[in-house]
This record gives sequence, C-alpha cells and structure tokens, in this order.
Amino acid sequence: MTGTSPQPLKVAMIGYAFMGRAHSQAWRTAGRFFDLPLDPQMSLLVGRNPDRTQQAAAQLGWSETTGDWREVIERDDIDVVDICTPGDSHAEIALAALEAGKHVMVEKPMANSVAEAEQMARAADHAAARGVRSMVGFTYRRVPALQLARELIAEGRIGQVRQVRAQYLQDWLADPSSPLTWRLQRERAGSGALGDIGAHIIDLTCFLTGERFAGVSGMLETFVSERPLPAEASADGSEHNGTGLGGRSGEGYGAVTVDDAALAMGRLSSGAPVVLEASRFAWGRKNAMRIEVTGSLGALSFDFEDMNVLHVYDAGEPGRTAGFTRVLATEPDHPYVQAWWPPGHGLGYEHGFTHQVVDFVHAVAAGEQPTPSFQEGLHVQRVLDAVERSSAERSTWTPVE
Amino acid sequence: MTGTSPQPLKVAMIGYAFMGRAHSQAWRTAGRFFDLPLDPQMSLLVGRNPDRTQQAAAQLGWSETTGDWREVIERDDIDVVDICTPGDSHAEIALAALEAGKHVMVEKPMANSVAEAEQMARAADHAAARGVRSMVGFTYRRVPALQLARELIAEGRIGQVRQVRAQYLQDWLADPSSPLTWRLQRERAGSGALGDIGAHIIDLTCFLTGERFAGVSGMLETFVSERPLPAEASADGSEHNGTGLGGRSGEGYGAVTVDDAALAMGRLSSGAPVVLEASRFAWGRKNAMRIEVTGSLGALSFDFEDMNVLHVYDAGEPGRTAGFTRVLATEPDHPYVQAWWPPGHGLGYEHGFTHQVVDFVHAVAAGEQPTPSFQEGLHVQRVLDAVERSSAERSTWTPVE
Amino acid sequence: MTGTSPQPLKVAMIGYAFMGRAHSQAWRTAGRFFDLPLDPQMSLLVGRNPDRTQQAAAQLGWSETTGDWREVIERDDIDVVDICTPGDSHAEIALAALEAGKHVMVEKPMANSVAEAEQMARAADHAAARGVRSMVGFTYRRVPALQLARELIAEGRIGQVRQVRAQYLQDWLADPSSPLTWRLQRERAGSGALGDIGAHIIDLTCFLTGERFAGVSGMLETFVSERPLPAEASADGSEHNGTGLGGRSGEGYGAVTVDDAALAMGRLSSGAPVVLEASRFAWGRKNAMRIEVTGSLGALSFDFEDMNVLHVYDAGEPGRTAGFTRVLATEPDHPYVQAWWPPGHGLGYEHGFTHQVVDFVHAVAAGEQPTPSFQEGLHVQRVLDAVERSSAERSTWTPVE
Amino acid sequence: MTGTSPQPLKVAMIGYAFMGRAHSQAWRTAGRFFDLPLDPQMSLLVGRNPDRTQQAAAQLGWSETTGDWREVIERDDIDVVDICTPGDSHAEIALAALEAGKHVMVEKPMANSVAEAEQMARAADHAAARGVRSMVGFTYRRVPALQLARELIAEGRIGQVRQVRAQYLQDWLADPSSPLTWRLQRERAGSGALGDIGAHIIDLTCFLTGERFAGVSGMLETFVSERPLPAEASADGSEHNGTGLGGRSGEGYGAVTVDDAALAMGRLSSGAPVVLEASRFAWGRKNAMRIEVTGSLGALSFDFEDMNVLHVYDAGEPGRTAGFTRVLATEPDHPYVQAWWPPGHGLGYEHGFTHQVVDFVHAVAAGEQPTPSFQEGLHVQRVLDAVERSSAERSTWTPVE
Repeated sequence: MTGTSPQPLKVAMIGYAFMGRAHSQAWRTAGRFFDLPLDPQMSLLVGRNPDRTQQAAAQLGWSETTGDWREVIERDDIDVVDICTPGDSHAEIALAALEAGKHVMVEKPMANSVAEAEQMARAADHAAARGVRSMVGFTYRRVPALQLARELIAEGRIGQVRQVRAQYLQDWLADPSSPLTWRLQRERAGSGALGDIGAHIIDLTCFLTGERFAGVSGMLETFVSERPLPAEASADGSEHNGTGLGGRSGEGYGAVTVDDAALAMGRLSSGAPVVLEASRFAWGRKNAMRIEVTGSLGALSFDFEDMNVLHVYDAGEPGRTAGFTRVLATEPDHPYVQAWWPPGHGLGYEHGFTHQVVDFVHAVAAGEQPTPSFQEGLHVQRVLDAVERSSAERSTWTPVE
Repeated sequence: MTGTSPQPLKVAMIGYAFMGRAHSQAWRTAGRFFDLPLDPQMSLLVGRNPDRTQQAAAQLGWSETTGDWREVIERDDIDVVDICTPGDSHAEIALAALEAGKHVMVEKPMANSVAEAEQMARAADHAAARGVRSMVGFTYRRVPALQLARELIAEGRIGQVRQVRAQYLQDWLADPSSPLTWRLQRERAGSGALGDIGAHIIDLTCFLTGERFAGVSGMLETFVSERPLPAEASADGSEHNGTGLGGRSGEGYGAVTVDDAALAMGRLSSGAPVVLEASRFAWGRKNAMRIEVTGSLGALSFDFEDMNVLHVYDAGEPGRTAGFTRVLATEPDHPYVQAWWPPGHGLGYEHGFTHQVVDFVHAVAAGEQPTPSFQEGLHVQRVLDAVERSSAERSTWTPVE
Repeated sequence: MTGTSPQPLKVAMIGYAFMGRAHSQAWRTAGRFFDLPLDPQMSLLVGRNPDRTQQAAAQLGWSETTGDWREVIERDDIDVVDICTPGDSHAEIALAALEAGKHVMVEKPMANSVAEAEQMARAADHAAARGVRSMVGFTYRRVPALQLARELIAEGRIGQVRQVRAQYLQDWLADPSSPLTWRLQRERAGSGALGDIGAHIIDLTCFLTGERFAGVSGMLETFVSERPLPAEASADGSEHNGTGLGGRSGEGYGAVTVDDAALAMGRLSSGAPVVLEASRFAWGRKNAMRIEVTGSLGALSFDFEDMNVLHVYDAGEPGRTAGFTRVLATEPDHPYVQAWWPPGHGLGYEHGFTHQVVDFVHAVAAGEQPTPSFQEGLHVQRVLDAVERSSAERSTWTPVE
Repeated sequence: MTGTSPQPLKVAMIGYAFMGRAHSQAWRTAGRFFDLPLDPQMSLLVGRNPDRTQQAAAQLGWSETTGDWREVIERDDIDVVDICTPGDSHAEIALAALEAGKHVMVEKPMANSVAEAEQMARAADHAAARGVRSMVGFTYRRVPALQLARELIAEGRIGQVRQVRAQYLQDWLADPSSPLTWRLQRERAGSGALGDIGAHIIDLTCFLTGERFAGVSGMLETFVSERPLPAEASADGSEHNGTGLGGRSGEGYGAVTVDDAALAMGRLSSGAPVVLEASRFAWGRKNAMRIEVTGSLGALSFDFEDMNVLHVYDAGEPGRTAGFTRVLATEPDHPYVQAWWPPGHGLGYEHGFTHQVVDFVHAVAAGEQPTPSFQEGLHVQRVLDAVERSSAERSTWTPVE
C-alpha cells in the first residue's frame, strides 16, 4: 500500500484441478489483504487438454495457457513455477525449473520416492546458492491456529515436548463403489492415505516440535482391493472439481495399489514418542486432521474440522481453574489474522494457501529460504518410506535417515 | 471417621416418587463419603397408598412407613422432615413441622403461591429463633461446577456482574400425546415450566451473583392445550418412576392449565440485565440447564448436560491465549470432590442431593442457617409470581418486592 | 464457463472500510468459483478522503475513484451501487440510485429509522416495476449451514415452528477504555448492539422461519456511558481496518448514546415465542451468533463461531439413537458448497459475501427480486424500532406493524 | 420389589482403597435401584492394618473386619470374594477363593503375569463346572453409553468393523515431583500405564467389537525415571483416598520401574487395525478414555470425560443431514438407565460399578457366566504381555496367542 508499486512476479502454474484452484485463489487474493514486496501476476496456466486448460484459465484468471510445461521453463519472463500436478511429475518439472533459475513451489508430497526427493533437495540447495527459491506446499502450516501452536511451543509454553498424537481422518473412500481415481494408483500417487494425508501430519509434527523423526514402526492396510474404473471424464481429474476425490464410475474394475489407512508409531530426535494414523475410511470424519502435542509444562490440541480454534493447556494454572482453553485464533494478535476480519469472523480452508503465497513472496523478495524447504520435504518423504518399509517387515522399528 | 460416633438424626420423608428416590439416595450415601457431625437415619417414609409405600420403603431403605404425614409431626423421635410431595402440600406440612420443632427440608418450588411462601418464610424465621432449621431443595447449587462458579464470582474473578443469560430446556412434553400428569395441572403444580424448571435458573441466578431480582418482564406460552388423561396408575405418580414426567395415557382428554414455556427479561438489584427461558418443548434438549454470567473482568458458562464442566473466561489473559477454559470440576480442589473419585471420574445428577444432605446436616449440627433459606425460596416465588403477572399484563415491567 | 462471455455488470461501491473490504473480496471472487450470468466489474470506488480512497482502490482492486457519491448516480455506465457506509447515509444514496435506475445493494441495518426505511422500501417497489433491483446485505443468510437450515425448515423437517432462541454475543466493547467510535453514536449508527448485531438475528429469525414478528417486548442497557474520544485517524474509520470496532483513544471523553446490550421477547405471526439477546459486552464470545429453532418435529441449532456446522435434531428418530446431529455443511449437497472445496475443508466469514454477490447477480440477470428485499429490511427496522419503544415504555408489549 | 424377599448373598471384600470404595458404593446401591434376585450383604472387610480397616468398615458400611484374607476363604458363610488389592495378590487370593467354592470378582488387570492369569482362567473354568462364578472388573463395559455402543455394533448398525482407535489419557504423573507410589513399581503393579489404563482400552476393544487381538506392535516409554519416595502414610495407599494416584513425598528417591506411556498398533482376529495409546503424562486429559470404532456402515465415538454421551454416525443417512449424532445415553431405552433418573440427568463414574454388581448378582443367581470372564481377562493379559515383548524387540509384530 506504499508509494512505488512493487515489481511484478510472474507465475506459471502446472495443473488446474483441486490444488490448482486453491493456488489460483491464493495468488489472486494475497495482495488484496497483505502488503506484498512483489506483485504476483497470474501469467501462464499449463494443462494437457487445450480446451479445458483455456476454460480453466478463464475461470481462474490466468492470462495465457500452454499445453507443454517445458514452455514455462524456456520462457524468460516466468519467475515462479507452481507445481500442482500429481506426484509422479513433480521431480522432473521441479528439477528443470530450478535448473532454469525459476523459483519453485511444489505441492505435497514432494515426490513419489526418496530417490526423487533427494535429487530435488540437492537441486534446491544448488539453486539456493544462485538465489533461486523453492518450497513445498504443506499448507496447513499456515493455518493461524497451527502457526500460533508453533509459536507457543517455540516460546517454551508447553516445556519440553513429550508426546505427539496425530490423526488425519477422512471418509471419502469408505464407500467401496467410489471409483479408482489416480489417487488410488501407486504409480501416480506414490502411496495412498500415507502420502496424501499422512504426509501432512508428519510435516506438522516436525513443524510444531521443531524436531525430526528418528525412526518409525508402521502398518498399512487396504480395505477395498478392487474398485470400479472411473468414467473417462473422471479419470483425468477434470470432473468432481478434478480433485481425484470422487467422480462417476465407468465399466470394469481395477486393483487398488495403495494403502487405505496407515498407522505408525515413531520417535522424534529427542526420543519423544509419536502416534500417527491416516485413514480415508473413517466414516463421519470429513477432514479431521487432529494433532495434540503434550509437553512437560502443558499441551496443545487442534482439529481441522474446527480450524479456527487451538486448545491450550497450561500446567502452571492452579488445578481449580486449569483446563484446555479454547482459543479462537481470530484475534489481531494471531498470525496472519490482522489482515483479515474482526475477532470471531472465521477463516476457511483456502486462507492457508493465501498465507503460503504471502510468505513465499516475502522470502523470494528478501532472498531468504521459504519454509518448508525441499530438505524438509525430503525428510517427510523418508518418514513415509520408512513407514512403508517397516510395514512390509512386520512393523519392525525402522530408523529414518 | 473420628473417635466417638455421631448422634443419630432421624429423618422422615414425605413422598417417594422422583424426588423421594433422589433424597433417599442422598440420605443413604452422605455419611459414606463425608464425615458428618450427625448420623442421618432413614426412619420413616410417608405415602398415601400403604402397599406402595411399604414397597418403596423396602426398596429405598426406610425403616418404617405411615400413611399420614401428621404422624410424623406427632412423633417425638423424628428430627427432620423432608418434604418431597407436589407443591400443593408443601406449606401445610412445612408449617406443622416447623411448629413441632422439626428441621425441614422442602423440595422446590417452595410453595404454589407467594402467600404460602410468605407464611412459610415467617414460620422459618420464628423456628430459627428456636434453633429449628429449614432449607429449600434447590439442589443444583450443590453441583461442584456451579459451587465453583459461585466461589469464583464471590472472589471477584469476573469482576462486577453485568449480564446473566440462563435457559432450562427439556423436551419431555414436546410430544402432544404425552399424558396430562399432575405437573400439567395448576392446582397441583402451581405453574408449568416456570415453577418446575424456571425456578431453578432464577435461584441459580441469585445464588451465583449474590443478588436478588429487582423486577421482570414475562411471557408464558402453552403450546398444547389439551392432552390425554393419564392411565390410572400414572395419575398418582406411581408409574414412570413416579416422576410425573411421562406415563401411559388413559381415556379422554383434559385441559393443560399451566405454561409449557416461560420467557422473562429481568434486572438484578444492581441493575444487571438477565434473560431467562424455561421450556419443556425444546426437542433434543434433555436437561439443558444453561447459565452464563458475564462480568466486567470475565465470564462463566455452564450446561447441566455436561455437568462436570465449568467454562471460565478471564479477560485479563492476553488475547493471544485467551478463551473459555473448560474446567473439569473433578479435582480435589473443587467443592465436594475430595470426598469422591480421582480427577476426570465424573459425578452424576444424584450427587447434588448428597451434597445437599451434607450441608444440611452440618448446618443443623452447627446451629446455623442452611442455604437456600425459606426467605430465599420466597424470593424465587415472588419472581415466579411477577413473571406470571407481567405475562398477563402485556409483559409490562413488574417490580419484585 | 460456457461459450459466449457474459455481459459486464459495472459496480460502484461507496465506502471501503470493514464492509467495503468484504464486499470487494466478494465481487472479485464470485465469478472465479461460480458461473455467473453477468460479469461483475469493480469499476468505481467512492470515499471522502481522496488519498485514502485511491490507496484503498489500489489495494482492493477498483479501477477508478471519486470523492462524491453523486458522481456514481450521474454516470450512465454504472449498473450497481453497493452501499457500505454507516447507516446515516443509506437512505439518501439508495433513493438517488434507485431513482437513477441503478440496482442497489445496501448494508444492514437498512436505515437509521423506520421513516427512512419506509421511503426506501417504497422506492424499491417502484424501481422493481421498472426492472431495477435492490437488496439488503444480511449476509449471514448465505452461510451454507444457515441456508441448509432454511431449506430443512421449508421442507417441514422440524414441523411447525414453536420457539426461536437467538443470541448475538460479542465482547469488543467490554473494555471501558475502548474508544467512542461512530458505532457508539446514535446519529451515525442509529442504535448500538440492537441495530448492529441484533438486526442480524431478527432477520435470521424471519429468514429461517419464513415468518414475521407480530410484536415484541424489549429492554436496552448501556453499561459504559462515557468513553474516551477516538484518536483522529480512528474517528473516520480509516484505522483498525476501518471497522469502527476499535482503534486508539485520543483526548477527552464523550457520551455513548446507543445501547450496549439489547434484550427482547417476541412473537412471530404464528404466535411462536422468540427470545433475542444482542450484546457487545459478552466477554469471551467473539462472534457468537447463535440461533436455535424448535419445531413440533425437531430442532436446528447454529453458532457462528463454528460456522460450518448445523446441529439437527429429528424427533422421529427412536430415543435410543436420537440426538443432535453435527452436520458439517461442507458436502457437495449443501448450498453453495459444490463450488468450493471437498468435504470438511471449511469456508470462512467472507464466503457469505461471495454467495450474496452470486445470488444478487443471478437475480439481476433473471429480472427477479433478490432477497432480502427492502420490504424485508423495513420489517427488521420496524422490529428494531418496536424494541426501542417497548424498552422506553417499561417493556410493554409493542406490536410490530 | 416383589413378594418374597431374595436370599442373602454375603460378600467379603479384600482392600478398601480407591477400588474398595467404589465397590462398596456399588454393593450398597445396586439393590436400591435395581430388582436383584439375591440380596448382597456387605459382611466382611479385609485389610492389613486393623485400625484403618475398622475405620474403613465403619465408613463404608461393612459389618465385620479381619486382617487375614485367608479367614474369608475358611468361613462358610461368605458367598462372594471381591478382590480390590493391587495386582500382585490377585492370583493367590482368587485361586484360593475359587477352590473354596466362592464366587470371585477381581479388579483389573486380572494378574501381573500371563502365567498367573492362565492359572486363574483354568481355575475359573473348573470352578464354573461346579457352579462357582468369576468375573474381572472391567467396569467401563457397564457405562450405559458403552453398553449401547456394544449393542449397536452387535446389531450390525455400523456394519463390519474396519478400524478401532483408542486412547486412555490421564495426567496425574506429568509432574515429576509426584511420588513413587505402588503404581510405579513393577513388582506391585505389573506394569504402568499399560496395565493400569491400557488394559481398559484393550478390553473395551474386544468388548465392543466382539473380537480378540491377533497380534500387536508395541512401544513403551518412561519419561521420568526417578521419583521421590512417598511419605510413609502414602506408601501403603492409606492417603489420597488410597488411590496410589498421588500423595505426599517423603525423603529420598527411587527408580520408576514401569512405563509412563504405552503405544501399540494391533490387528483383531478379523484383521481390522487398531491403534492404542495409554499415557499418564497427557497434561489436561484427566480421564480421557476415548474409543472410536469405524465400520463399513458407520462409526461410534466415546470419551469418558463426557461419559453420558455416545456419538453415532450412520453412513446410510443422506450427506445433506449426515453427521455424528450426540446421543445422550440417559433415556429409558438405554442400558441400565430405566432404573435411574429422567433423561439428561447424567450418571457418574460409580454407576458403572453398581451395574457391574447388578449383572454379577444376576449371573450368580441364574447360574450363568458373568462377563468379562477370567478367559477374557487372560486375553487382555496376553495382549499386555505381547505389547511389552514387542516393545523390547524393536516393536516387531508379536502374535497374541
């Protein structure tokens, strides 16, 4: 809002399904509520189907379209590549973009394998040395209540972290007649509930505690092993808002090659035990990403189904009036909230994406590393991998590199 | 639990329906968990139907029975008269008992009219001068979470009381085929939702704030004006646990002569506004006695459907971590709780009655006035009366004497 | 998203404070998530201070600015006038705009007096005959959970409406050192909590039940009668996000001339009793707009602090499994939700404004009356007025015309 | 309540601390609210310290006392032995009592080792052949909401069980200065959080699903390895209500030899995955025994901190009104509730014990096996043992016999 206009920051986005829509809203909105040091411009949208891509660009507000992501790499005027495709193409695109000197934002999980993620993290480090920035889209870090949780833990308000219990529960696969979308195919999605939603609680555990995982014991389960093939239009993600979360069934059946639920016990570098559960079969839980961190002096608890609230327990309070305090994280004192509405006027899912853009643009402008970095994304990938390997080996304890 | 055994305190109870069962459990249990200065003995049970009364005495644990409450008055060995009958007989029995020098506990509402209540309060004052004690059974005062609320307000934790909002919502009359029990007859019950459950939130407002009502504006409503007459056995309260809360329908219909819902706005002596609602038609609310007191420095909130919890808001807490704290009032520091179970092992409805007996017995032994006194019961009666009169006069503001 | 592009719909907005920011976000976003029959263009922003207006236009995305709202009326290219100023200027602007054939959206409360509102409603009726549309911004109608509530009631799911209990509780004035903004001045704001937030629950009661108020009994209270004058910059609403909800104090004190809390009991046209409370002093309640509607067959309950949830009680369910069902109104089946995110990915405060724009644009394109109409706004104004008059006359029952 | 009086059932209880107090209340109360086929008489209390035992007997209402549990075995007039001591004496007493033809109720966990439990289960089977009954005190099975959950699952209301997630969280050990009571000594308590509270959720998982555990992967943690020795009076459990849950510290420190938190992943006989966590370090969680069972057609969820409520999700409900229903399990239709109070008048912790006595007495009178049997108790013991062994072997999958 100050004197001279900020310089433009030209963005190209690959993919326009669920994540693409959320990212578009974020690029469009960030500068309307926050003072940004650079002016993001929604320049180029990339998608395979030309008609659909043009339609999406018109709807979402992108200036141009192309059918080939390589064009993005080659164009000099693009500053940022925002990768919103399924996980199997992340590595190739991100490596090319970083190589070409473009800042990269990539959706989670960062990659479909540890090998890919390692390559990406190395490339990100090299790029950083040349001033090129990269970041993984673990958006939930930017929910104000969770950002507040991180601040309180970092300030020592709950003391030393003793335990983490986290669940990410959904139910959109609980119906066995729901079709076999790309999210149920190992070669596209890497894994199932584990990588899709388990990755979020793994990242949040690291984010909130400031620690990494030392090792895990894992257990995977596929409840429904065959599902109807999706109708054609659903198959490419262009239906059902392209989320890969549903759609119409077509003819024939195919094998589900990923997990429906993933369980893990782990330990952080400090030794603190962690319990994790990710399930897309938890009837009645729509987006229940829940995390509770218990420390030596208190505890914090969060459930995304009530996303504007953080519950805080302060063990220093006398027993007579102690209890979990329901903090409605909508005060001007809370992270990001000053830019929005008065207290009690809640934010929604998409605001995390807007905050992510705000932080990314600030980091790019300041020449700093945005978080979570590809190194952090790699760590999540290694935890996912360790859970899978442990699961295959009778849940035996498996160190995380 | 100390050296010499406490002296016996011989109790006679009139009525053995819903309240009689709750009082019996309290007389039986109080000395098992609390050290009492006197030893309550369940001596005599009074009921009209000899067979049923004997059956009830056997079940509830009373030593003897009689069909005539006057026998209680005449017997020298009875120390306490516990009146659990419908409101139309309270005054006569209580006056006789006080006159005979017996301590009296009477269920709420204390009487069916202000005139009766005035007479009772006068008699109680005279009796007190002779060392005879009396008390009204507003049991909810003895729920630990509400007792805690009173303590916090008395300590100034929420500052000066600014507003009270209270609801008592039930749904057992919402079905129009539910029969016409005594609770729906003005000559038996005095009033409907107003006196039955509204009386509780009026008393609690006074108890929690330490104030009285200066005046009210009221509005009454009867949704269902005719109901099936109850089957004979239900009519006298001997069925459905004798609660008058349900039962089987018989033949024919009769007029409902009490209110189904009562609304009021009032002011306390300090001028603080109060909103009250009592309804027995609130589908889905089973026993939702809710009260929230807002002061200049904080607020407290309670719902009986979650009776072990008090929500506390401290306005002095910085906005970043402020919010209502869910205090599970089951800690040793909480009123009455030390005698029971470890933290989190909740108490139930009947515990309020046990605590009432404990406090009553202590007051009798100490020669002190138990609370709430008949004067306090009279005040509630006056508020009930003012609500009814205001309702009949276009809700015009009606001072409470 | 279909073939030919929709025609433009050129919008001018008067005022750019709290409501202006919310409306801007709505105009900007509606077409990105919904297929609109017309293409809203953010053409002209009106504000008194030229610098601040230009700054706001740049931030919020309006193409041009002007210092005089009359310019809007005179310009032929403006199709819609969106009035986001305090209530004292609504009538003048709206009348001129309708007269000039421009569609009008006006923030609530519609006016500062019944006389103004009557004039506006008449003008709206005349304008409608000429195809000019008008609407009041009772945005909460467009919260999906509340829209769902309306649908369920209209379908008869809770039977005949028996009772409504509604509260709108905030706490931003509970601190007596908070300054005297325009919202505390009768000549600017019309009334206090009554018109600011009470208006919302009055409108929602009408919206949800499909009824009007027959009469009310009211009671108003001002807890803090003098407050520090605001620092200059706060006075004109340009600080604290221009919400008039806070700001810095300057020198001297001034009189609060509006109510801090408003209580009312009312009856709907069907006779159903309603209890209302609006307070800006309810410590710990940030934006607790709560409404519960009880019918003969069930009940619905809502709290804006958990805005994506509707609680539904179905009295037809057997007692064994009956209870309030927590419906997370984020399913594709829920109103407006299909356009947004997958289940459980909650919406926020601003989404109601976006939905309001969507419905308004559809109504304009279809040549239909958007809701709530100025007639509906007038009814709310009459209820507000009746509450004030009743309050001044010892809460005596006051019919609503 | 019917004609001839029931025959007496003479009970001797060993131990009078926390569990002894709860059991006493149950023996005293059961016949007052339920029609029992036998009349339990509180005949004999056993405790080591004669003075304290006599004091306890007076307080709790036992007729006689003795210092030697063997006297119970030898006396012909004792019908039931109720064992409320720490786990290290369960086996010896139970074996002797069964051998002597006395019915046995034993607190959980049934024993301190699998070997003991096997011996006990064998003895119970032999005794059963002679008409002698035995039962383990997994009281939570008798909480009405959990009994309802079992009924709904058995009726197929949630279809085939797919997943169980259970936590038992307390915080009474979170303070490292809390003393080293018997519950922290392996030779007395067998294990820590695992056997004390983990045993409950293992049993409940079996009870609710009707299945057994096929195997587990476990992880144990001791956060505080040394604690102050308790003051003498605390050491023998006679202080702090003898719960072993707290007390005063004395001089010196000793080693904690049990786990503070226990984590496990398991599978039921059907293959359904289970996640378990037991912790006595979960700040702010006082008695949060939470269990959620997800099936193919719905889900059920429970938290003991809100013990009168069961949340029920029915996947057959259309998405528009689907959600978890908060069933307040206080209706006459709910298990055990008919005997108590009207809807919404909640029960407390001790009611589970009363229901346990009711069911035990009925089983004894009918000559049937009460549940949970010693065989069921043995299964829990085997799961506890498998968790410990897995934990010691890098969490490797460990089948349960």
